[in-house]
Amino acid sequence: MEMKSFMGGKSVILRLEMDTEKIRFGEVANFISQAGGDIVAIDVIQTSKNVTVRDLTITVGESGHIQKIIESIPQLSGVKLVNISDRTFLLHLGGKIAITSKTPIQNRDDLSRVYTPDVARVCLAIKEDENKAYSLTIKRNTVAVVSDGTAVLGLGDIGPYAAMPVMEGKAMLFKQFADVDAFPICLDTKDTEEIIRSIKAIAPGFGGINLEDISSPRCFEIEERLRNELDIPVFHDDQHGTAVVLYAGLISALKVVGKSIKDVRVVVCGIGAAGIACTKILLAAGVKEIVGVDREGMITADRVYDNPMWNWYASKTNPGRKSGTLQEAMVGADVFIGLSAGGILKRENVATMAADPIVFAMANPTPEIMPQEVEDIVGVMATGRSDFPNQINNVLCFPGIFRAALDCRASEINEEMKLAAAEAIADSISDEERDRFYIIPSPFNTKVVKKMRDSVIRAAMATGVARRVPREYR
Amino acid sequence: MEMKSFMGGKSVILRLEMDTEKIRFGEVANFISQAGGDIVAIDVIQTSKNVTVRDLTITVGESGHIQKIIESIPQLSGVKLVNISDRTFLLHLGGKIAITSKTPIQNRDDLSRVYTPDVARVCLAIKEDENKAYSLTIKRNTVAVVSDGTAVLGLGDIGPYAAMPVMEGKAMLFKQFADVDAFPICLDTKDTEEIIRSIKAIAPGFGGINLEDISSPRCFEIEERLRNELDIPVFHDDQHGTAVVLYAGLISALKVVGKSIKDVRVVVCGIGAAGIACTKILLAAGVKEIVGVDREGMITADRVYDNPMWNWYASKTNPGRKSGTLQEAMVGADVFIGLSAGGILKRENVATMAADPIVFAMANPTPEIMPQEVEDIVGVMATGRSDFPNQINNVLCFPGIFRAALDCRASEINEEMKLAAAEAIADSISDEERDRFYIIPSPFNTKVVKKMRDSVIRAAMATGVARRVPREYR
Repeated sequence: MEMKSFMGGKSVILRLEMDTEKIRFGEVANFISQAGGDIVAIDVIQTSKNVTVRDLTITVGESGHIQKIIESIPQLSGVKLVNISDRTFLLHLGGKIAITSKTPIQNRDDLSRVYTPDVARVCLAIKEDENKAYSLTIKRNTVAVVSDGTAVLGLGDIGPYAAMPVMEGKAMLFKQFADVDAFPICLDTKDTEEIIRSIKAIAPGFGGINLEDISSPRCFEIEERLRNELDIPVFHDDQHGTAVVLYAGLISALKVVGKSIKDVRVVVCGIGAAGIACTKILLAAGVKEIVGVDREGMITADRVYDNPMWNWYASKTNPGRKSGTLQEAMVGADVFIGLSAGGILKRENVATMAADPIVFAMANPTPEIMPQEVEDIVGVMATGRSDFPNQINNVLCFPGIFRAALDCRASEINEEMKLAAAEAIADSISDEERDRFYIIPSPFNTKVVKKMRDSVIRAAMATGVARRVPREYR
Repeated sequence: MEMKSFMGGKSVILRLEMDTEKIRFGEVANFISQAGGDIVAIDVIQTSKNVTVRDLTITVGESGHIQKIIESIPQLSGVKLVNISDRTFLLHLGGKIAITSKTPIQNRDDLSRVYTPDVARVCLAIKEDENKAYSLTIKRNTVAVVSDGTAVLGLGDIGPYAAMPVMEGKAMLFKQFADVDAFPICLDTKDTEEIIRSIKAIAPGFGGINLEDISSPRCFEIEERLRNELDIPVFHDDQHGTAVVLYAGLISALKVVGKSIKDVRVVVCGIGAAGIACTKILLAAGVKEIVGVDREGMITADRVYDNPMWNWYASKTNPGRKSGTLQEAMVGADVFIGLSAGGILKRENVATMAADPIVFAMANPTPEIMPQEVEDIVGVMATGRSDFPNQINNVLCFPGIFRAALDCRASEINEEMKLAAAEAIADSISDEERDRFYIIPSPFNTKVVKKMRDSVIRAAMATGVARRVPREYR
């Protein structure tokens, strides 16, 4: 029984099978107390003649170690540790989502209508006009959340089985925040072509594809190919969700410090999938000077890189063809956007930035610089973490942007729709509410999805990708 | 606006957009009445200055024609027919199933547990032991209902979009009858290899694969390959669901006429996917003499066929190597199983069968012979239709057999499990209830799934394919 996953917690549920002829429960309880554990709940799972199975909820104080308790259990003769769990694990038992019918099937008439034979008329109507799939099937409201499990959270390539909990969680958020039906699909292949083929094969039932946690650089080709080869929106959330919320934060931060997007000099640190997507949205938003920095320093068109995305990046940014270190790039910059690694930025670098600098240090779990180190010298500071003000959280984007795309049957989610989504997020805070510690709404702010739906649908109609005009826009 | 799908109905809902400056609603109502339609309900959808949009529910009497009414609407100046619908179509609006969260996300703690970052501990636990996917993800209770849309109902190759309503209907039945979460996947490919690859790719999130409405002979290879290459049950319902319910009916019918399965001579007519599956289960059940008949007459090992499945079939059946017509095959047979075409069997053929003949005429929508033609000379008669007694309906099988397979984490659904499933269906009727007009329970009989779960789990454990012993069997 592996324990690694439980080592950090302060509460755990142990399922113990006890041989009642060999040991009394009191002895077990006493043993656990002596090992530093406090039994706060007991649930009897099963009792037969000689065996009793119980779930013990155990907490430990600051100094206690759950691991120590777990490891000591085998010393007890007559006790078998059947299972270890905690609140997070219990929440996952059997998965976090379910499929439900919208109507019950109560009699043969219902059976005929939903399954056979009367359903055939519905099938034929779709066969005559494939667009009817949008009104007569789940395609209207359903998104596939697809991952190959190669870049999950900060965990890296953990495979399709281990990626499922995150994708199920995403489906929950889609439903709760935007009433989108999302279904998780974790692919048992890392081959770019096979991923593309599989997603194309399963596409008919879906109104959109949310790509998730696919490692770079494969994620670029997979998304681009699918965008070209499918007629439904394909959106790699790690890239574009992050970019939209970052840009929303920047709109708001610029208002706080009183600068214009056209005038700022931006340093983007970490030129991977998210860094490139953030740069693209800033270029689309009208930023004129962006300098990208990665392990080899400032990315410039004067050099040729092995990574083809960096050559593309160099051609679109750094108009002054500067070269040098991150430290050199920071001098005089208005905005720092970090999507790189914890702790790589120093207070003295921030001190060299322009007046009222904006620092978005989004590396996870440790930001490029901790807020407390520079709070007194920055204009606005944001991170990817929920325990500091101004969290850049992509939960603010994907539910609303897909709600809008589905409602207007958008053929794609284009740059204009992303900009509109970001503006909607920034607009969810009023100018009176806005200050340097409150540039971005909470993921639980219910205004966001509504505002975003409206502005993204308008952008989709204006750019000709909406295939249906919702009644309220006619 | 196509109307074909509505021609057969006696009730329809018309959405009309009326220019109130050009026409009053009374004129519209009068016009529809004169055309033979009775307006039984009106719903106002939208009203603005000059335009009103209303849904009119219209029924017609025995002699009326909905088509005629629909076709006459354009004669009305100022009226636009926006949409035509009926109860079946309304039921399908936006699809028939939804994805729901099992728990709400109420605060940042919940968000951490289900999406990021605390969920990472759950991901890691699965990464350490892939079997944990069964307890910590939806895999435990989720089945993919997969079709390529090539053999849907009696409609043939209608494509993946048009197949969705049937697959969604199947998902509803899975949920309602056996609390299985089933999700419809319609594949945009007819290529055998690509179908196999796509299903293998999406398999990690599922505990089983229900193949559906895939045309023969590709369905054989697809199922066999997937059974060998995946470690979860793969079950082509058109073959095995039909076979299980047929065998259940036969067990029951043999009790009614007092014959033993070991002694009967069986004619199977129509040697496609379902005919072959029915033959396999009867062989497994101990039937000694089966003769298959198709367009070329009795299938015999004395001939070589282009269809490789027929050569296989010949090697397993017809021990006497008889040849000749269906009529000749019927002489002295105890059981006729029809999975062929409407009306091909005559009363005089049934008259040549052994005493108390059993006739299962399952061609859809028209049986091989109508019950009323032979009611007086058969022992037991069954069809695939709900409007005659003894309907052989595969809804009786798939929910329960997958419920069992998921609960014991079966690696496959083998022949023994299918036999057990059939016996459970037959056992759901008591000997007192059983008679020639009641050999098989209704699909709404709630005893069936419970009985089937128990007997199929026991069969899975006995044959070593159960990877988990449910607590109640320990």
